[in-house]
Amino acid sequence: MSRDFVISIDAMGGDRGPAAIVDGMARSARKNNEIGFIVHGDAEKLEKLVRKRGLADICQIRNTPDVVAMDEKPSVAMRKGRDSSMWHTLQAVATGEARVALSSGNTGALMAMSMLVLRKAPGVDRPAIAVLWPAEKPQGFNVVLDMGADVRADPRNLLEYAVMGAEYARLGLGIQQPRVGLLNVGTEKTKGRAQLAEADDVLLEFAAREGADLTYRGYVEGNDIPGDKVDVVVTDGFTGNIALKTAEGTAAFIRKALKDAFAHSPLSRFGALFALTSLKRMQRRIDPRRVNGGVFLGLNGAVVKSHGGADATGFSSAIKLAFQMAKTDFSQRVAQQVAKLAAERDTPGAESGAVRGNA
Amino acid sequence: MSRDFVISIDAMGGDRGPAAIVDGMARSARKNNEIGFIVHGDAEKLEKLVRKRGLADICQIRNTPDVVAMDEKPSVAMRKGRDSSMWHTLQAVATGEARVALSSGNTGALMAMSMLVLRKAPGVDRPAIAVLWPAEKPQGFNVVLDMGADVRADPRNLLEYAVMGAEYARLGLGIQQPRVGLLNVGTEKTKGRAQLAEADDVLLEFAAREGADLTYRGYVEGNDIPGDKVDVVVTDGFTGNIALKTAEGTAAFIRKALKDAFAHSPLSRFGALFALTSLKRMQRRIDPRRVNGGVFLGLNGAVVKSHGGADATGFSSAIKLAFQMAKTDFSQRVAQQVAKLAAERDTPGAESGAVRGNA
Repeated sequence: MSRDFVISIDAMGGDRGPAAIVDGMARSARKNNEIGFIVHGDAEKLEKLVRKRGLADICQIRNTPDVVAMDEKPSVAMRKGRDSSMWHTLQAVATGEARVALSSGNTGALMAMSMLVLRKAPGVDRPAIAVLWPAEKPQGFNVVLDMGADVRADPRNLLEYAVMGAEYARLGLGIQQPRVGLLNVGTEKTKGRAQLAEADDVLLEFAAREGADLTYRGYVEGNDIPGDKVDVVVTDGFTGNIALKTAEGTAAFIRKALKDAFAHSPLSRFGALFALTSLKRMQRRIDPRRVNGGVFLGLNGAVVKSHGGADATGFSSAIKLAFQMAKTDFSQRVAQQVAKLAAERDTPGAESGAVRGNA
Repeated sequence: MSRDFVISIDAMGGDRGPAAIVDGMARSARKNNEIGFIVHGDAEKLEKLVRKRGLADICQIRNTPDVVAMDEKPSVAMRKGRDSSMWHTLQAVATGEARVALSSGNTGALMAMSMLVLRKAPGVDRPAIAVLWPAEKPQGFNVVLDMGADVRADPRNLLEYAVMGAEYARLGLGIQQPRVGLLNVGTEKTKGRAQLAEADDVLLEFAAREGADLTYRGYVEGNDIPGDKVDVVVTDGFTGNIALKTAEGTAAFIRKALKDAFAHSPLSRFGALFALTSLKRMQRRIDPRRVNGGVFLGLNGAVVKSHGGADATGFSSAIKLAFQMAKTDFSQRVAQQVAKLAAERDTPGAESGAVRGNA
């Protein structure tokens, strides 16, 4: 296999089984002749699927006996999962055989294993999961993190998230000087929890330094996440996960309401025929499958988490994202940013966690 | 004024000024001949508006010199706002002249003043703000709280919210045995923050008692808020506010995407003509103006907070909600539920905050 960008794939994660995953690989392979795959899972099943999809030339299959269940506790997965498809998927990145790991499996287990197999990048206190969130702006997306790597985040973590998220916005959205906002329940200084006011000071201080390559815009609210006020929204993993799932639920609710509305009467069904192209156009724009993938930031190696329920289209989007990460040396560049931050933090007189801004 | 259900209205709150509010009153008055109003604000302006809308017979006007600004700190509003429209709106309920208070003003200030003017109902540790959230179910809505009365909530508060929210579901949605869920980032016991696991135990214990009039369904996730898994979603005010505003932002984003899709080409604009009725049908169903109003739970008196940006239609919905609260003796019945809870809590051997469930 002489492909430049080898992606290591966990074929056993996700709710739809290996067939949807191999279908997604085939979709991506048709559009991109630079990628190759190492795919982990039930070799017998995978060989059939890979042959059927004509992927044998660009795909190595590795048999792994175990599977991490979707509801397995991360601690259990770490202890018992050393022969799982997920573990070996990450190992292929650790050994350098693949450039990026991709799994639709259990998020908590994947993060815990990633930290063990790939280790945190130097200077990183806590890795985070970032997503591209559809937004009303020229680039079409905002970066939002943390989406659930950890339910807590102190001011230092939130600053790290801001730095890593800004790098994602630079590489993924082409925004050179990303605007960063801190998610809160209002925009006035006194709003929200005490720790947020402290993080607000830390971020103000950081962004005010000479040569800072992000702009801090202060607090933002939930309705700013799909907006154009900032490019990066920073929050703890608890709040980020609630926001993401609430948005998914809202979008699904509206999709259903729209479908019901057009199915209501013969006339509305007739109207639907004329509206179909427009509806599809809108659907494409808000389709969660179009950008499928939480990106793990702050590790020595690139990891993408695909949505557990992703179909072939969704999984192919995750492969595209993984490919872009490999191509831009994404995880190395994020690691450099954090190392720079850590170096500044350790310089006397610049302890951003301790110095309070003037705001 | 001999109307049975007098609603005390703050005409100076909100972003659109008194005209939108008086228009909303007129809309409601056309549909409902049991309501009357005491309206607080700039009497000169209000007299003109009230006369123009033909409301003079069912509307008392009270001149109040001050206005609480939308961005005023609650503490400042409490000190300096004793002659504001908001303060006097609440006073009319405290004195018994009106059955329910309604304001589109600053939420934090309204809650702080409500606690001072109306006081907490006996046994209530912390009042909460609840909303009806459009959901995919026969009743069309779920009750979600707290939406921002307080950014923190301990297990005891969350139990109180569950009890008050369940009463809202009974009175507002006609669900006799409401199913309650605790908002978290996953459904497994180990997920989320430590305090949530404690609240989970407290709720399990409470719901398992004989005669409990709510069913506890454990953790729910963001995507369950608009679903049919539970009828009441309980969370702290920080998380609730983020979820609500994220949902609002998502809905606005999709509305815009839909509009853009239909405006894309002459053919899509033609298609839009046929789709119009269906789109309007959907829009009605998800229209946030249709149920406008956060309901304050746990006070000696009924208070409804209308959305700050509400237009006449939105404000009229808030009046409808206020009327229903008055008609069902809502705040008294919620207070009874909490008093019952407090009595149980004080019974030796039933200290729900201390006893851990077996789950």
